Amino acid sequence: MKTWRDNVRKVVPYVPGEQPKRKVIKLNTNENPYPPSPKVEEALQGFDAECLRLYPDPDCFSLRTVLAEYYGFEPENVFVGVGSDDVISMAFMTFFNSDKPILFPDITYSFYSVWADLHKIPYETVAVDENFKIIKEDFYRENGGVIFPNPNAPTAICETLEFVKDILENNRDVVVIVDEAYIDFGGESVLELTREYDNLLVVQTFSKSRSMAGMRIGYAIGNQELIKAMNDVKFSFNSYTMNQSALYIGGEEVKDDEYFKKTTQKIIATREKTKERLKELGFEYTDSKANFLFVTHKTKKAKDIFEDLKQKDIFVRYFNLPRIDNYLRITIGTDEEMDSLITALKEIL
Amino acid sequence: MKTWRDNVRKVVPYVPGEQPKRKVIKLNTNENPYPPSPKVEEALQGFDAECLRLYPDPDCFSLRTVLAEYYGFEPENVFVGVGSDDVISMAFMTFFNSDKPILFPDITYSFYSVWADLHKIPYETVAVDENFKIIKEDFYRENGGVIFPNPNAPTAICETLEFVKDILENNRDVVVIVDEAYIDFGGESVLELTREYDNLLVVQTFSKSRSMAGMRIGYAIGNQELIKAMNDVKFSFNSYTMNQSALYIGGEEVKDDEYFKKTTQKIIATREKTKERLKELGFEYTDSKANFLFVTHKTKKAKDIFEDLKQKDIFVRYFNLPRIDNYLRITIGTDEEMDSLITALKEIL
Repeated sequence: MKTWRDNVRKVVPYVPGEQPKRKVIKLNTNENPYPPSPKVEEALQGFDAECLRLYPDPDCFSLRTVLAEYYGFEPENVFVGVGSDDVISMAFMTFFNSDKPILFPDITYSFYSVWADLHKIPYETVAVDENFKIIKEDFYRENGGVIFPNPNAPTAICETLEFVKDILENNRDVVVIVDEAYIDFGGESVLELTREYDNLLVVQTFSKSRSMAGMRIGYAIGNQELIKAMNDVKFSFNSYTMNQSALYIGGEEVKDDEYFKKTTQKIIATREKTKERLKELGFEYTDSKANFLFVTHKTKKAKDIFEDLKQKDIFVRYFNLPRIDNYLRITIGTDEEMDSLITALKEIL
Repeated sequence: MKTWRDNVRKVVPYVPGEQPKRKVIKLNTNENPYPPSPKVEEALQGFDAECLRLYPDPDCFSLRTVLAEYYGFEPENVFVGVGSDDVISMAFMTFFNSDKPILFPDITYSFYSVWADLHKIPYETVAVDENFKIIKEDFYRENGGVIFPNPNAPTAICETLEFVKDILENNRDVVVIVDEAYIDFGGESVLELTREYDNLLVVQTFSKSRSMAGMRIGYAIGNQELIKAMNDVKFSFNSYTMNQSALYIGGEEVKDDEYFKKTTQKIIATREKTKERLKELGFEYTDSKANFLFVTHKTKKAKDIFEDLKQKDIFVRYFNLPRIDNYLRITIGTDEEMDSLITALKEIL
């Protein structure tokens, strides 16, 4: 019998990191352990609810202007979206319309392949080496576009500006997207290279270093032609994606640079301290420049550590995937949270 | 020479209704002339900024629960998205995967064809009659799905529950979406029919009757199987679309039903009064059950009236499209705004 069910899209739903309702130590989704700037609280208090009756500015001009000023660009160099997921998906739609496959690392953010499938973009993954490092020369071949995170996730490894520049030099005919979701934790941003390379799009987010995962704000910076193309695509099917509170609150957050730098430095300090303590417990890890560690233990299996920690109400991330199924991704929390982690690990091991 | 520009998506950007920066009388985008409920202001004041460091609940459970309780359903019957545009686009992706064309009226919300093109869904438009009424029998044929707004836009005409039921009876094998963006201004919702027809999806929005266009909240109500399918598709490529402020503030708005009913009634009263006054000035119009009027003048061309009003800083909507290029869509504002409109029209005519 024919039924409407025959035409329902078949999908494999993504399983996000667990969001336990009870009070636990949550080191599984790379959120910031510190609240957003006090300016955000103030901005919420001062937000004029009356204006909500009107549609938001589809151009998102106020937030684009604040971001442009902060990073030393023009508003025309900035695109904003509902989290970097929305921004990257829009960039895929806008720039990756070649018959040739786009390229990204085999171990990387899991959504790249999802968006490629969603937008029917052919893709090939490029294997990272045995130390999980991206081999840049493997990206020097004909392709429909390139994307990689820097630092990469979940490996936490950050490459240099020169490294990215080499990839750009060898990919002048396609758009190269550098996903800098975790760049503020010690990596070197390639934002400045957008002035030199008109095919470079740099994506960043408010969800990690800016403590605002709950507000869903991501942005891309690139030359005006790239940004215009993205805005044209956005306007072609949904003009009003960013709500007024996100546009306003986001702008206020960026203005409190002191707080932003202070909390980011605290996370970096906690990360470096945690590395040392994990080493003493027999862990090995990559040289993380992110707000998480990518670790494996010399003797005990990652999956078992993951389960044991969960029993103790400490949530970390385990990926049951080829090559990384003996690794854990551990978000950097507060010093107190990391103390609890270390104590728990001592008991487990 | 090969360049990244070769692979940029070709689009025709949508031109939204003008959002003039200076103070004007804005009757062109069907926004609510009244601010949101005072509870929204209170909710913003009481919103805990600290929680913004965490990702929002991808299930949107709190808002779905409030909506479910309000309309007498279960949370499993409710899907929420970033405005009804996001909700409908997601429904298109989820349900319209047939090779047969989906059907919608030739004069209707302009984004249906946009989303069909975006998701590569074949479609055919069904002509409304000379009075702009939907001919239901024209939807009684093989198709891949059906969507229409009720009240329709920009015609403002609302059909009865029996009318919709006839369309459902003759379309049991496909999903039928009724877009009720404007239903609260005097129309009869078909929400109850979702209990009887498992293929009926009803979409509503916070942007019109709930005075919150700036917050970007839309929702769909239907049987649990339809809603689960939509959530699966959403989770497959973007789990975190609704930010925490929208989820929270939206819920608080729904709880102030008295304010919602009062402002909606005021708009209806203003509409009916405006109709009479426009008739005296030589206008003809459809029997609007929306927060806007669809009008034509017996002697003066719509486009000229549109331009003349703009000169007087009164913005209404003119569509340069076949069949409706001698009509104007005029949003119902406050009584004072409509007084200004009538005064201006008297001068123009």
